[in-house]
Amino acid sequence: MNKESLIWREENQKEVFNCRVFSIHESYCRSPHDALRTFTVLNAPDWAIVVPVLETPQGKKFVMVRQWRHGSRSLSLEFPGGVFEPGEDPQAAAARELREETGYRPESIRKIGEFSPNPAIMANKVHFFLAENLIDTGRQDLDMDEFVDVELVDTETVFKNMGRPPYIHALMASALTLYLQQ
Amino acid sequence: MNKESLIWREENQKEVFNCRVFSIHESYCRSPHDALRTFTVLNAPDWAIVVPVLETPQGKKFVMVRQWRHGSRSLSLEFPGGVFEPGEDPQAAAARELREETGYRPESIRKIGEFSPNPAIMANKVHFFLAENLIDTGRQDLDMDEFVDVELVDTETVFKNMGRPPYIHALMASALTLYLQQ
Repeated sequence: MNKESLIWREENQKEVFNCRVFSIHESYCRSPHDALRTFTVLNAPDWAIVVPVLETPQGKKFVMVRQWRHGSRSLSLEFPGGVFEPGEDPQAAAARELREETGYRPESIRKIGEFSPNPAIMANKVHFFLAENLIDTGRQDLDMDEFVDVELVDTETVFKNMGRPPYIHALMASALTLYLQQ
Repeated sequence: MNKESLIWREENQKEVFNCRVFSIHESYCRSPHDALRTFTVLNAPDWAIVVPVLETPQGKKFVMVRQWRHGSRSLSLEFPGGVFEPGEDPQAAAARELREETGYRPESIRKIGEFSPNPAIMANKVHFFLAENLIDTGRQDLDMDEFVDVELVDTETVFKNMGRPPYIHALMASALTLYLQQ
């Protein structure tokens, strides 16, 4: 199969919007048939999603966070995660986000995959980690404007309910696929 | 658990960017602690992702599409899908996108879940469908600027390779979780 027949080449780009969370540029690209077209691309920092697995007398639980999401205007029950700080090691960032949002510190954490969150319009990547052997430090470390409830949920319950509220976040189902690969 | 303690209330919003594919607004919200904060939200049409399962003498295959993605600037191997046209029935839209991109017409198609693609910043939803009993019409129906290769891939191969190129699209792994729930 001639993959070359599918490839576009960017000739130029221009920033057209910028805010605290992301920027947008127009991308001027040459098609496989040599036509020039304009696409709009969103640039944001890479971030991590952490699947934290807690062994309990009642079986394996995921440590999850319930929080308000301003895009969907709803509560969402999710794996913890967050944006990398400049120059921060991805695995260190993942462990830091887990600790800040849930109070759990992982004794082992490792990368299990990465995705483009939406390669049609987004230029960044989301990195996925599995965190095990969790130590409960007993306290979150939230920003002033963060309101996050921590919940322990049976792994099977999470799997069964993905795609229905409060499991509304598509990227948490992506995380689950990588977890099930292990 | 007092969920009220997590809920923000939008007081106003203003559009700050608009292009062919999406628009952006600032959302002015009151926090659970009564502070006023500004968030940036991306609005785009809802769309469908279709998991097409083909029974073959060599076992179950997914009908997938390989195409260039302008956000990730890379090729991506994906389930077919696309944006709803105004007023279009979601299931009809899913069947139409499958037929246009792959040439396969489903004799049965049903919804298996929906997600917010990224509830932190996106207001739209992505709807997932399972398409079975596929009839090969033998021809795609692509727009002039669409370049899409169709590939049949073992379901197990897709599952094992999600999170590594060319399986780079996070929402295809979300689709897989919903497929595995069935």
